[in-house]
Amino acid sequence: MTDRDHNPSSTHPPLPPTSEDEQFSRLRLLRSRRVGIATYKRLLTEHGTAQNALAALPEVARAAGVEKYEICPEAVIQTELNKAHAAQARLVMQGTDAYPKLLNELQEAPPFLWVIGDVELLKKPMVSLVGARNASSLGTRMARALARDLGAAGYTVVSGLARGVDAAAHNAALETGTIAVQAGGVDVIYPAENTELALSMAEHGLRVSEQPMGLQPMARHFPSRNRIIAGLSQATVVVEAAAKSGSLITARDALDQGRDVLAVPGNPFDARAAGCNQLIRDGATLIRSAADVIEALSPMHHDAPQLPIPAPTPRRDSPPPAKMKTKLKQAAALHRQILSRLSPAPVPEDQLIRDLAVTASEAAPALLDLEMDGQITRQSGGMLSRS
Amino acid sequence: MTDRDHNPSSTHPPLPPTSEDEQFSRLRLLRSRRVGIATYKRLLTEHGTAQNALAALPEVARAAGVEKYEICPEAVIQTELNKAHAAQARLVMQGTDAYPKLLNELQEAPPFLWVIGDVELLKKPMVSLVGARNASSLGTRMARALARDLGAAGYTVVSGLARGVDAAAHNAALETGTIAVQAGGVDVIYPAENTELALSMAEHGLRVSEQPMGLQPMARHFPSRNRIIAGLSQATVVVEAAAKSGSLITARDALDQGRDVLAVPGNPFDARAAGCNQLIRDGATLIRSAADVIEALSPMHHDAPQLPIPAPTPRRDSPPPAKMKTKLKQAAALHRQILSRLSPAPVPEDQLIRDLAVTASEAAPALLDLEMDGQITRQSGGMLSRS
Repeated sequence: MTDRDHNPSSTHPPLPPTSEDEQFSRLRLLRSRRVGIATYKRLLTEHGTAQNALAALPEVARAAGVEKYEICPEAVIQTELNKAHAAQARLVMQGTDAYPKLLNELQEAPPFLWVIGDVELLKKPMVSLVGARNASSLGTRMARALARDLGAAGYTVVSGLARGVDAAAHNAALETGTIAVQAGGVDVIYPAENTELALSMAEHGLRVSEQPMGLQPMARHFPSRNRIIAGLSQATVVVEAAAKSGSLITARDALDQGRDVLAVPGNPFDARAAGCNQLIRDGATLIRSAADVIEALSPMHHDAPQLPIPAPTPRRDSPPPAKMKTKLKQAAALHRQILSRLSPAPVPEDQLIRDLAVTASEAAPALLDLEMDGQITRQSGGMLSRS
Repeated sequence: MTDRDHNPSSTHPPLPPTSEDEQFSRLRLLRSRRVGIATYKRLLTEHGTAQNALAALPEVARAAGVEKYEICPEAVIQTELNKAHAAQARLVMQGTDAYPKLLNELQEAPPFLWVIGDVELLKKPMVSLVGARNASSLGTRMARALARDLGAAGYTVVSGLARGVDAAAHNAALETGTIAVQAGGVDVIYPAENTELALSMAEHGLRVSEQPMGLQPMARHFPSRNRIIAGLSQATVVVEAAAKSGSLITARDALDQGRDVLAVPGNPFDARAAGCNQLIRDGATLIRSAADVIEALSPMHHDAPQLPIPAPTPRRDSPPPAKMKTKLKQAAALHRQILSRLSPAPVPEDQLIRDLAVTASEAAPALLDLEMDGQITRQSGGMLSRS
């Protein structure tokens, strides 16, 4: 932890590596035990290069009380690079021009993305389409219509290569450009029924993963995948989603990242519309077509007032409407406040709530959300820490 | 137009008549040619009694340039009273205890309502259910569920005795209490297929009309009927409505009256959901069930913020959300501004728009709405007047 010229609390993305050796060392640093994205970025900032950080890592671990710490063996990284070569995967590093702009804004943007396919797609404006695996025929029809029309309008369609809404969206946007974010390694196709689609996307689209090559996806990898889907895009459209479904987690990620959440409504008697209808009640914009999505994305929509007022006298009774403060956006703000106040050092829950100046009943659902998401950890004695 | 002690521009509802003669004269005044509700109230205010107003009416008409004016013959009113007696209809006059409280708040509240059935229903809190005549099976099922559950929760269900959503709502609320507002005379059942329902409502519900007994309903009577449906109720729920349907006029009436508009969403591929989805996009609350309606009606919902904040320190980044300024509510405010600036004396449209301090493109849809509604009249030379 040498004293350097730069601000040690800075979170700016690391500069691109200056050599292949440094790139290798960065991968090795990130793949080392107990090194998450936040730690990776802090170590790089503190030590200047990954090679210096790797050299310091055993001592950092010992100081933190971790016994018998070993950094990731070089052979593991060599194997990952060999697999990538075999799969024709390329590495897109944060800090390079190829890295997607909006994803770069995330506090925990992935330092590396493995990609297979047309990397230029990462430069176009993106919209995510997410929804139920067991989508209805109307749901898949809507996914197709949205993907086709958004593609025709110049947007890259992002989704998660799952069955149902995801597959329908990817298929309909293959010609115009579509990106699949995968929960496991970019060379591991899941589910198997989407193998043909995944192979087509390697030709005409792009597959993306932050995970090591060859990693088999597990349930715990999906929240992380969802944050990338939301993070790539200006807006996330939830096409069809039951209550408490994974699509709603992606929607919340989008909000937490300050992106727009849009939802397609459905009849309340249809359980598959429950998640979307709830999102709309909570403030998501109701979407009927790609035209509605594009309207929601337009800068005019974001900068109220919507109509010019050229008249010389001010309007008396209607001030320009401020951007709506919705329940969803309030929840996202609370999530950010909680995360900004927590660190790996545990603090008592009641103290956190006092510091936030909210009621316990306000804080409880936000804390549960963050815990379910794996972003915070509850410990014995009512203590909370950042994961 | 004598100079009296009271403020001639006052619009407070007239006191109840002190005699049967005065009641007879008031009906005669309202039924006289060229006497609308606004004129009726102004004449009563200026002349103290209907008998005085009737005496002055020919001179008022002559001063306004109307030739050969005749007031409504006594025989016409006597016939109306005879028909009412035969139909067991009663007169509910504005200013009496029986007159519904919320309707009384309307600027153009009907001075008289003919009612058949249980007049006590006018004292309960009311919710209006409106929607398509050619409702889908899901739409009528939703109307039934909402009417049954709102009835069980103590609300009188108000609708318009039309086929489709209206009939489903009335039928489901017959046991708990339901009011049909009719476009023609209260003794004229329309449509014929709802005869049995209308007869049941005379026994177990209430039928209401502001029109003379025996009047056959015509298209031009429906906007006036719709304003009463909306005016009776705390909120109007649009169950299923195509784009540009009559239910949307009722919804706009509700907004113009400062009442809540709630809408049941539907799949965008279903044309019968188009009106409701548009309303939700414009700011109406999305409704899935009677519980959602009741939540929308609760005073807590109206007085933001929704959560108590007992903590001593103020919250930093989230001021209590002001009641949402939605497009719909802005439109309603513009309607009110336009109406308040117009009178029967024509003014140039461009001058009105300058006075409103809005753009021509903002004013145009509002003016069209009001013209379609019969509330304003376009005249030659770009002149506008209040109808």
